[in-house]
Parts: sequence; C-alpha cells; structure tokens
Amino acid sequence: MDETLLDNIAFNADGLVPVIAQQHDTSEVLMMAWMNRDAVMETLDTGRLCYYSRSRARPWRKGESSGQVQSLIELRLDCDGDTLLALVDQTGVACHTGRRSCFFTALGAAGAREIAPVLVSPDTLYDRSD
Amino acid sequence: MDETLLDNIAFNADGLVPVIAQQHDTSEVLMMAWMNRDAVMETLDTGRLCYYSRSRARPWRKGESSGQVQSLIELRLDCDGDTLLALVDQTGVACHTGRRSCFFTALGAAGAREIAPVLVSPDTLYDRSD
Repeated sequence: MDETLLDNIAFNADGLVPVIAQQHDTSEVLMMAWMNRDAVMETLDTGRLCYYSRSRARPWRKGESSGQVQSLIELRLDCDGDTLLALVDQTGVACHTGRRSCFFTALGAAGAREIAPVLVSPDTLYDRSD
Repeated sequence: MDETLLDNIAFNADGLVPVIAQQHDTSEVLMMAWMNRDAVMETLDTGRLCYYSRSRARPWRKGESSGQVQSLIELRLDCDGDTLLALVDQTGVACHTGRRSCFFTALGAAGAREIAPVLVSPDTLYDRSD
C-alpha cells in the first residue's frame, strides 16, 4: 500500500475521519464510526475494518470482542475528502445491541420508534472466553 | 412536532450531529453532512432536508442554489444517538460536482480512482438566476 494514498483524506483537527459502513450486496447502512490514519492504513492492508475508538482512545478492530467482523470490499472517499464510505461484508450483526444495523430507531410525528429486531442476544455477543 | 423528540439526539460539543443521506429506493449513499438542532427540527417539520453548513455557519437548505432538493422519507437515529440516517428522495444529483453521489472516489492498491460519471455540469447546477 502506497501511504501517499492517505494524503487524499482530510482528517479533522483530532486526526479522525468519519466512516460509514454499508453492506456491499444489500446496501444496508450498518453503522458510522471513526478512523485515524493508522486505522485506515490497517484496514486497507488487512482487508478487515479497523476503526479508532474515541471513548477508549485506541484502535478498535471491529469484531475483536463480539466476533462480528467486517471484511472490506471497497473504500470510497467523498468529494471533500472528509468522509469515507466502506463497502463491507458484515459477519452477523453490526450493532452491539444485537441488531443488524445501528440505525434501528425512526424519529417522526409518532415519536421515537424501534423498527428492527434484536437478532442476537448481546449477552451471547460479549460472553466470549476466547 | 414534539421538540422533546430531539432530546434523543446526542449533539457534539459544537451542537452538531452527522447525517448520512441515503436514497430511499436504491439505497445508494448520497452524501454526509451535519445538522444542528434547528436543522433537525426544520427537516422534520418541512419534509425537506436542511443541514447546517459549517463553512458558512448557517442553515443550508439542500438544493437552495442548485435546485437538487432532498425530500425526507424517514429519519433514523443510531444506537448511541450520535448519528442520523436520512432516507431521502433526491432530485437530480446530490454532489456539487454533478455526480449522483459524493462518494465517487475508490481508494485501493491502484490508487485513487473515480468510479462515477458527471451527470450534470456544475456550471448548469450553479448558474441559476432564480
């Protein structure tokens, strides 16, 4: 991987760029998270999505605890260079609540309404001894 | 619209939340932009996407210059409450470059590569006297 490729990306003042993860074949938007320069490089090098956890201030290899990994199909950059779109192949569920997508709440005149079922119990997702 | 609905949204330190715009029927991810509280409220009230322009520090009613408006189909919130997904019906093109989506550059071993055509000349988009 030629590291100059990353010079196309306009990281913010914290050195981060938002990344939208979209399932490559169904086009479902799964989640949004952040990457720093090292995480983008690792993702391109390994073909596995690696984000940067702002709360834990460290690399976050998607699925490292839950086993719900994301394989990279294609990484795309927007016209301003400040947002990435990752086409991925998601194993299982993307959301820590056990739903396929993190975007399971609709906001509207009827209030906030859940529109997607829990597919895997969060207890199962995070009760792993390996 | 009950304004308490917006209390579900975790705006960042600048009072903003990132918004992913996705075409409702094709599921194409069109763009990512930001909203403040007033922009979310206006979007829900009017059914037209209103963002907050960070560079111009003012509301940005999508299509106000270009005519390429976005109608809201559904607004969704993610599990952490800090990202919105807007399902929209996009008139024409979402990108100021005249492409349907802003995510027209693929990053990979072959470098940065354009993967989507210009559908409308930017001169046409922004040469409007009305």
